[in-house]
Amino acid sequence: MALTGVLRPGHAQIRVLDIEESVKWYTDVMGLKYQGRDDQGRAYFKTRAERDHNSIILRQADRAGLDFFGYKVLDKATLVELERKLNDHGVKTERMPAGDLLETGERVRFQIPTGHTIELYAEKNAVGSAVGCVNPDMDVIDQPGITPIRMDHALLYGTDLDGATELFCKVLGFTLVERVKLEDGQTDLGVWLTCSAKAHDIAIVRHGEPNKLHHVSFQLGSWEQVLRAADIMSKRRVSIDMGPTRHGITNGTTIYFFDPSGNRLETFAGGYDHYPDMEPITWTWDEVGAGIFYHDRKLNEAFLSVVT
Amino acid sequence: MALTGVLRPGHAQIRVLDIEESVKWYTDVMGLKYQGRDDQGRAYFKTRAERDHNSIILRQADRAGLDFFGYKVLDKATLVELERKLNDHGVKTERMPAGDLLETGERVRFQIPTGHTIELYAEKNAVGSAVGCVNPDMDVIDQPGITPIRMDHALLYGTDLDGATELFCKVLGFTLVERVKLEDGQTDLGVWLTCSAKAHDIAIVRHGEPNKLHHVSFQLGSWEQVLRAADIMSKRRVSIDMGPTRHGITNGTTIYFFDPSGNRLETFAGGYDHYPDMEPITWTWDEVGAGIFYHDRKLNEAFLSVVT
Amino acid sequence: MALTGVLRPGHAQIRVLDIEESVKWYTDVMGLKYQGRDDQGRAYFKTRAERDHNSIILRQADRAGLDFFGYKVLDKATLVELERKLNDHGVKTERMPAGDLLETGERVRFQIPTGHTIELYAEKNAVGSAVGCVNPDMDVIDQPGITPIRMDHALLYGTDLDGATELFCKVLGFTLVERVKLEDGQTDLGVWLTCSAKAHDIAIVRHGEPNKLHHVSFQLGSWEQVLRAADIMSKRRVSIDMGPTRHGITNGTTIYFFDPSGNRLETFAGGYDHYPDMEPITWTWDEVGAGIFYHDRKLNEAFLSVVT
Amino acid sequence: MALTGVLRPGHAQIRVLDIEESVKWYTDVMGLKYQGRDDQGRAYFKTRAERDHNSIILRQADRAGLDFFGYKVLDKATLVELERKLNDHGVKTERMPAGDLLETGERVRFQIPTGHTIELYAEKNAVGSAVGCVNPDMDVIDQPGITPIRMDHALLYGTDLDGATELFCKVLGFTLVERVKLEDGQTDLGVWLTCSAKAHDIAIVRHGEPNKLHHVSFQLGSWEQVLRAADIMSKRRVSIDMGPTRHGITNGTTIYFFDPSGNRLETFAGGYDHYPDMEPITWTWDEVGAGIFYHDRKLNEAFLSVVT
Repeated sequence: MALTGVLRPGHAQIRVLDIEESVKWYTDVMGLKYQGRDDQGRAYFKTRAERDHNSIILRQADRAGLDFFGYKVLDKATLVELERKLNDHGVKTERMPAGDLLETGERVRFQIPTGHTIELYAEKNAVGSAVGCVNPDMDVIDQPGITPIRMDHALLYGTDLDGATELFCKVLGFTLVERVKLEDGQTDLGVWLTCSAKAHDIAIVRHGEPNKLHHVSFQLGSWEQVLRAADIMSKRRVSIDMGPTRHGITNGTTIYFFDPSGNRLETFAGGYDHYPDMEPITWTWDEVGAGIFYHDRKLNEAFLSVVT
Repeated sequence: MALTGVLRPGHAQIRVLDIEESVKWYTDVMGLKYQGRDDQGRAYFKTRAERDHNSIILRQADRAGLDFFGYKVLDKATLVELERKLNDHGVKTERMPAGDLLETGERVRFQIPTGHTIELYAEKNAVGSAVGCVNPDMDVIDQPGITPIRMDHALLYGTDLDGATELFCKVLGFTLVERVKLEDGQTDLGVWLTCSAKAHDIAIVRHGEPNKLHHVSFQLGSWEQVLRAADIMSKRRVSIDMGPTRHGITNGTTIYFFDPSGNRLETFAGGYDHYPDMEPITWTWDEVGAGIFYHDRKLNEAFLSVVT
Repeated sequence: MALTGVLRPGHAQIRVLDIEESVKWYTDVMGLKYQGRDDQGRAYFKTRAERDHNSIILRQADRAGLDFFGYKVLDKATLVELERKLNDHGVKTERMPAGDLLETGERVRFQIPTGHTIELYAEKNAVGSAVGCVNPDMDVIDQPGITPIRMDHALLYGTDLDGATELFCKVLGFTLVERVKLEDGQTDLGVWLTCSAKAHDIAIVRHGEPNKLHHVSFQLGSWEQVLRAADIMSKRRVSIDMGPTRHGITNGTTIYFFDPSGNRLETFAGGYDHYPDMEPITWTWDEVGAGIFYHDRKLNEAFLSVVT
Repeated sequence: MALTGVLRPGHAQIRVLDIEESVKWYTDVMGLKYQGRDDQGRAYFKTRAERDHNSIILRQADRAGLDFFGYKVLDKATLVELERKLNDHGVKTERMPAGDLLETGERVRFQIPTGHTIELYAEKNAVGSAVGCVNPDMDVIDQPGITPIRMDHALLYGTDLDGATELFCKVLGFTLVERVKLEDGQTDLGVWLTCSAKAHDIAIVRHGEPNKLHHVSFQLGSWEQVLRAADIMSKRRVSIDMGPTRHGITNGTTIYFFDPSGNRLETFAGGYDHYPDMEPITWTWDEVGAGIFYHDRKLNEAFLSVVT
């Protein structure tokens, strides 16, 4: 098949400080569909357009952050093959049993060199989008919340960026789409990687501490929906970190904001298609400001350093 | 790699009745970048955002239509492997020499059961987008023409739809995204197939005659750019067939119109992502009108039957 | 004052065949705010953004159409003065008592030469927009219906176009913004008139029968909201007459559709500002198609002849 | 007439430090149409959509800022009447001769209590928009610059805000649309006034120094054109002060940026209609941040204090 192996970002488990408040916020402000709780008390959500049972899982904890980020792979055979490749690459893997996450099959879990926990899985029950698969009507936005299309990607901050990039590209078949170089012109400050033809399915930035989350991102349908999202955030007194603006990197239009626990989220629209035959785009240190926020063209310390 | 095999639609060779007039029209009205002529007199174009040397090739002829439609594959090894698979499937292939198309490597050419000529190739010289790969600025539209992002897909009309679908899916690794059923509820009237995660990289409709072109399609960045395109068409007295409107199938917003030779073209924006683990969407015969043009919800005879 | 006299279209009383069904439809599909019934059984609505108590009044009747169309004037002194001017112009006026329409003051009612009933009034109780007048938040669309900004204008079909135009311009202070000429190059087929700086506060087309309604129009905020409106119409199986498309006249983007009684409504966005020092725009008979629907550039018989 | 008296902002004379550089910048970056120079060396511009000969006049000087801001009035009789009203109000007026500004009739010039020079005039030669008044095509954006629709309004900073407001409202017939209150809940920090039904035709903020310019503003057609403008600014290395974002006040979407001389300009889209029967909107001191920049909801010192 033309698209095979690792298909797409599938789920993110996020730590929140108050699960009741967070269930309300992810429902009312984000406009996600609440899918229920498991016996560990974790709360599950999907967007209206997503077909699989869940994409966001919230777990109550003492500090915010990302527990793990999961990718759906083509099928069970692919899962076995990728586990073998990971092991061959020297990566220890752990099998999380089917059903540990609601409506989700067995997961292969491992740590990447930036310290983050990544998962692969082949099965998550398809409960269907809001409009279904037979003569679907358009799913017009008709509710108060932001109502994104999908959970789209994450930006991770961690230590061994080169090791993580090698793992994603050599073992999991990701492609380098864009990269930012440090002042030496050699070292990567950050990389944007895709497992499909999207501008990014994961992004990673070099950081002094391992296993940090910069943001989990949700896709919107247009720049006008980015404006609607910003209006909702202000109306609901959500703390906006940055935006609406545009990234030079990926060309996406964007807003960064914080959930009630301080986890940074992004809603974005746009971005170009990247294919594995294409040369990656490189941002040099002197222009990295324009790469990150195209209209401002300058570095924003808080944006670069605040992580959970 | 996660995206491998057949990557994307790469070129379409279109027959035009007056090459000089057409070069002017595809430059001024479509806003394509003219890339020169070859010694057979064929004219080459790319969009500003496309990186490879050409995507549209015009050939002067007595009647309009599509000579062939080509896909770029990952690399030369993939080309060899796919040729072998085609042959194993009983498809005769022909090698077109490197350089036969400007800046393009060797192509593997074959006929699909609907009578169309399809090509695969691994090499087309990357001349770069308008903004390049180092610290790229945004490529703001600053010229009179429509200025699409890319040549995106084609819709073919032909006889043996089932055979063509089988070839694309079983041999070339495409996935079925949507299909329209005839009144019997069994037979496919048309199929939309992807080799990536786009809503379609090819579409095929069952038709009494083989080897017909319904349209070649160009991607735009937004519904507002669809409006701009329609305004340009009216201003330049281009014959609009349909639109601006929305497809139920793929959810894309669209305009259909004709080049000076009567070839139908499309400019569209939007559409959802499809992955190979997802169930295809099915349109039943009684709702096919809404599938084709969502706002009208009724069949349009001219749209369905006029082909080149 | 710079803006004085007749301020804006304020209310339209529309006849519907089934008032219960219509109340539901104008609420759920149009997204209007239901404001209650009067003792004659008439149902009142406003948009969320409108501040006065009502703008659409539905009356159950045996046939669809427009009972009357009303304009708000600056104040009671203006009402008296305009009534005197109307009488001086030979127009008989009738005073409708305060309270005859809910929360509405005394109205001066008269017939214009096209046979339509027009009203002027100075008082309608300001119940406020959805966001109020102190530190208002943005009124983000968060409900299923179309949710227009305001009832904006009407297009009337009637007999003595010249007489009606003279009355609006000479007596009521409207300005001619655009006009369409018949084949003789002299006679007006239609006129677009403003009492403010909007592209139109009333439009009138010459027609064989008096007192006909072509459409009542509602303003939307953007071309993307026009698309959302069209999607809602299709989803709710509303009969769309035309669009989404663009008018040459006024430049507005538009959809025409029918309420359950067959009254044509419009949702539109955009249009330019016109001031009384500006030359009107003239459309000649050979280009009237582009004037009406800019992308099609051809006359549409049903659109031109079907009225209620 | 319904719209009479003062019609609209008509021209702004802006001081620039290098007229040659500025002519190039206002042409290439702003996308204005250069209309020539007068014998004092002043450079004239209009937008493509404006019909009168000029709206922006640049004068070379040692420091940036606004020389004067002019309003077009309905006709010569109105000009005489308003001059008389100004004199009755105790305002000294000066007659600037016809032809002093290119293609412009006699102007009545006066100082308002904030120290700014305001002009009224009845005549400016109508040279026509880019598409004319007979069967006009849509004026599709087809050039590199921002290409606004019109010079729309200015925001002035000055001393006697109350006196200026009284003059605009009582003498010139403007209406108060919105106001921001200081901490005392009584004193106005700023007012937004209209002479038509636009959200603002002038805005004034209380300031320690007289006769300061905060910005001159240009209207764009949509939020997507605001994005295009921001992209052009970044691409052309224009210094962006703020945005893209949205104002709470007027609801407009906006970018603030500086011309090469340091004059702040705005490009904006949207905003609601205001009529003289409507209650003004009031922003209290604790919410003024949201009034100014709705998404940030906090005061921005540089935005508030930097003026020319």
